[in-house]
Amino acid sequence: MFIKNTWYVAAWDHEVTREGMFTRTIIGVPVLMYRKADGEIVALEDRCCHRGAPLSVGRREGDCVRCMYHGLKFDAAGQCIEAPAQKRIPIQAKVKTYPVVQRHRWIWVWMGDPDKADESLIPDTQWLDHPDWRSLDGYIHYDVNYLLICDNLLDFSHLPFVHPTTLGGGADYAATQPKVDRIDDGVRITRWAIGIDAPPFAAAVKEWGGKVDRWNIYNFTLPSILLMDSGMAPTGQGAEQGNRDGAIEFRGCQAITPETENSTHYFFAHPHNFSIDKPDVTRSIHEAVVAAFDEDRDIITAQQRSLSLAPDFKMVAFGIDAALNQFRWAVNKRLAEEAAEDALAKEAASVQGAASARLATRG
Amino acid sequence: MFIKNTWYVAAWDHEVTREGMFTRTIIGVPVLMYRKADGEIVALEDRCCHRGAPLSVGRREGDCVRCMYHGLKFDAAGQCIEAPAQKRIPIQAKVKTYPVVQRHRWIWVWMGDPDKADESLIPDTQWLDHPDWRSLDGYIHYDVNYLLICDNLLDFSHLPFVHPTTLGGGADYAATQPKVDRIDDGVRITRWAIGIDAPPFAAAVKEWGGKVDRWNIYNFTLPSILLMDSGMAPTGQGAEQGNRDGAIEFRGCQAITPETENSTHYFFAHPHNFSIDKPDVTRSIHEAVVAAFDEDRDIITAQQRSLSLAPDFKMVAFGIDAALNQFRWAVNKRLAEEAAEDALAKEAASVQGAASARLATRG
Amino acid sequence: MFIKNTWYVAAWDHEVTREGMFTRTIIGVPVLMYRKADGEIVALEDRCCHRGAPLSVGRREGDCVRCMYHGLKFDAAGQCIEAPAQKRIPIQAKVKTYPVVQRHRWIWVWMGDPDKADESLIPDTQWLDHPDWRSLDGYIHYDVNYLLICDNLLDFSHLPFVHPTTLGGGADYAATQPKVDRIDDGVRITRWAIGIDAPPFAAAVKEWGGKVDRWNIYNFTLPSILLMDSGMAPTGQGAEQGNRDGAIEFRGCQAITPETENSTHYFFAHPHNFSIDKPDVTRSIHEAVVAAFDEDRDIITAQQRSLSLAPDFKMVAFGIDAALNQFRWAVNKRLAEEAAEDALAKEAASVQGAASARLATRG
Repeated sequence: MFIKNTWYVAAWDHEVTREGMFTRTIIGVPVLMYRKADGEIVALEDRCCHRGAPLSVGRREGDCVRCMYHGLKFDAAGQCIEAPAQKRIPIQAKVKTYPVVQRHRWIWVWMGDPDKADESLIPDTQWLDHPDWRSLDGYIHYDVNYLLICDNLLDFSHLPFVHPTTLGGGADYAATQPKVDRIDDGVRITRWAIGIDAPPFAAAVKEWGGKVDRWNIYNFTLPSILLMDSGMAPTGQGAEQGNRDGAIEFRGCQAITPETENSTHYFFAHPHNFSIDKPDVTRSIHEAVVAAFDEDRDIITAQQRSLSLAPDFKMVAFGIDAALNQFRWAVNKRLAEEAAEDALAKEAASVQGAASARLATRG
Repeated sequence: MFIKNTWYVAAWDHEVTREGMFTRTIIGVPVLMYRKADGEIVALEDRCCHRGAPLSVGRREGDCVRCMYHGLKFDAAGQCIEAPAQKRIPIQAKVKTYPVVQRHRWIWVWMGDPDKADESLIPDTQWLDHPDWRSLDGYIHYDVNYLLICDNLLDFSHLPFVHPTTLGGGADYAATQPKVDRIDDGVRITRWAIGIDAPPFAAAVKEWGGKVDRWNIYNFTLPSILLMDSGMAPTGQGAEQGNRDGAIEFRGCQAITPETENSTHYFFAHPHNFSIDKPDVTRSIHEAVVAAFDEDRDIITAQQRSLSLAPDFKMVAFGIDAALNQFRWAVNKRLAEEAAEDALAKEAASVQGAASARLATRG
Repeated sequence: MFIKNTWYVAAWDHEVTREGMFTRTIIGVPVLMYRKADGEIVALEDRCCHRGAPLSVGRREGDCVRCMYHGLKFDAAGQCIEAPAQKRIPIQAKVKTYPVVQRHRWIWVWMGDPDKADESLIPDTQWLDHPDWRSLDGYIHYDVNYLLICDNLLDFSHLPFVHPTTLGGGADYAATQPKVDRIDDGVRITRWAIGIDAPPFAAAVKEWGGKVDRWNIYNFTLPSILLMDSGMAPTGQGAEQGNRDGAIEFRGCQAITPETENSTHYFFAHPHNFSIDKPDVTRSIHEAVVAAFDEDRDIITAQQRSLSLAPDFKMVAFGIDAALNQFRWAVNKRLAEEAAEDALAKEAASVQGAASARLATRG
């Protein structure tokens, strides 16, 4: 069960090209994406309405796509506009389209009611293509339910255990208690360490001349987008109050998009605003993150296997679960709301149907 | 769900040898086939009635077969005639046998009520072993439901899309509208193109000296047998009215036999009556057909994968679906008839049981 | 469905080491085993109570184990004694422990009610580590339900068919009718052949100077433990009455432990009391047994595949099935008893709950 009325990251912009066709399954639905001549992206259900063949093994014809089973041709609105051996095309011969927006390197699709697709709801990931920031594109495929990845990201306590030699370094910082706040559709985790030593990677890129204040602020919102503001500034200047002079900063952007109930797409990048003319630094940051994420994937995949064997397993809650419990609560709340809306819509449709029937009988 | 009271092609004759044992699963039932000393074929359920071990890993002993788990020996009628350490064999110790007929190179089995097995119902495939015709044996295994293959064969519109460089060549001919007729237990598709150019393969085997009339007549009958009459003759002589002088002809024989709900056996050959002393021509025809069928398998397998992800998918009907809809209708009609017969038989058995019980009480 | 209140063989003693962690799934439950500093074995559910990660990918810390996802530490009693960022550990934060006993080279676990775990119920396998006997350790993993292996072991009639060149040799002996007796929780099969020729392997290790009496006595008890007493003695001295002077003897020990409904662990050894200073003899006996068991696995795996295709298959009973039917009856009886006990316990709990509720209301 997935949230539908929300924006999901479906691809990096470079994955969808002007000539080709790109298919990716989002919350159980195969979605075909391609670009029209004007660069605009099209997102169609990747399944011909005729006999179900995937359009992605078909052929681009201008801004249209032709199913290479029986030759039905669909325009960018999903409408069938050509079928062999017949002039009149049935009006219902169309494939579903999905609202799709490219913004700051990510392609977002809306899998729910198109009328509710509001672009202003798309989270701001400006750092992905801002000239003052640098990052590399990350993508990992997981064979687990997406919530297990959310759990992992919303918990700092695993860092010293899963990532002893990568992210977990710096026991001082790891020991700092995070502050967990409920925000709209999600949770914010804030962690500040005042007057600590700069970690080795930071000492390597900058002369600090003293202690630093270090922070990590996660905004984790539905459906499962993590925007991270982290960095460090010389201590004493009031970084916590907003003065980021001389700071080095990261703006991590991570999107967890369910593929199916048991598999997940994971998009990520970690833009930084220092050493931006040194591709080696950017690459080294990216590789450190990928190494850590591979460690996460190992333990989460083992966890998924273990849970699959015990469908009745009841998790015991610990204090460290505050943020992830908060987020799971937000997910369940939204799912319940969507279920209620669906039920209401069905009832309305049935009332309307009955009314039409009465009118028809009288007529 | 499969039709039971019908003849299915189970094997090419050469697959069932005089010494060995051959096993193939037909509509979900593993069937062991072998030849007796007199050449007659035996078809038994490939599952020992004792503990279920497959007889096909057992041993031939004359016209009998011995299960090599506990040594039970079965005769060609499926009756157990020997069991270790006991003289009296229980009468119910037998494995099911199936009516089986070898005819014109194909081995046909009847999986339903043996009393209804009527050999005269076996379609005529005389061209497979007629001295005036030549062909090579074809077999392809599919991981799809058999109806998707029937759909494919009953539709000409896919030819230019799936087979652009193989079968699809000749846009003139492909554009010809097929005529679809209901026939007993199936559908006939007829296509005539009068006064067209001979296609390249035909020009290569014969000097035509002018235009040709080309035809393609499919008889597609339950459970899923396609007999194809196709060819071409010099135009103007009345080929459509029956004069096939100077024609080159094919008599395609194709049998689609379900293995399970999700896998299928596909037997085929394309006998031709020209160049019969040129094995290269026969081989080249066969290879062209196999190449085209591999193209079909690619798209149908992609279609099956796509449909498996969307169990509620509703196909939108097009004009090109006339023949396949006709055939699916015939399949469903037969399935409904068999279900009704089964229900009736059960009721009769229960009435008879009650009557016997009454008699017994009085007695 | 598995018997729970019984001892299952979980491992050979050498598989569970003092430093490492060993995990094996027993009747569907992953069990982590390790040794404390004092050598005592610990058996824990291999699934952290927090988020379900397998403890076996965690870390040993003295007699404790730490989950390497979030760092929870569990003592040998399964109690969580350390969790990151919190002092007070919830009392319910524990993983299940299982009674576990090492005896004569095998490690036995009790998967049911710990209060019922009675070590005196563990079958005697003293020959596995007795100085007067020699054997090698055997283990085979099967992808079949454990009862199919029990069936196989409880039936001698398959010997000449499955093992024509290994165990099956000696038609005289194979023809001897076994005597089947019901014993506590199982079945005993006894077979004596008086005054026959010594089989080749026996002739190779001893000069007999005449005929022999040969015996084979199986004790097959719940959950599925086979203790075999077999051997031969010079004929005429009354071996059947108990005089085993000059005999060569085996004491086969075999344990069939379900892993899941469709997979099984098979532990075995064949201690012998002759040529005990000749490792080549021990190895040769072991290899002959392994070769025969591989033959069994082939046919049983084929049988399982065949049965999986036919869930409604009804086995036809033969005389040779006496012992295995007896044993399956014992299994079903015990399962029914455990189900009845569970139902009673649930009822008692609900009555007690209602009583407590009444008291609480009054209070």
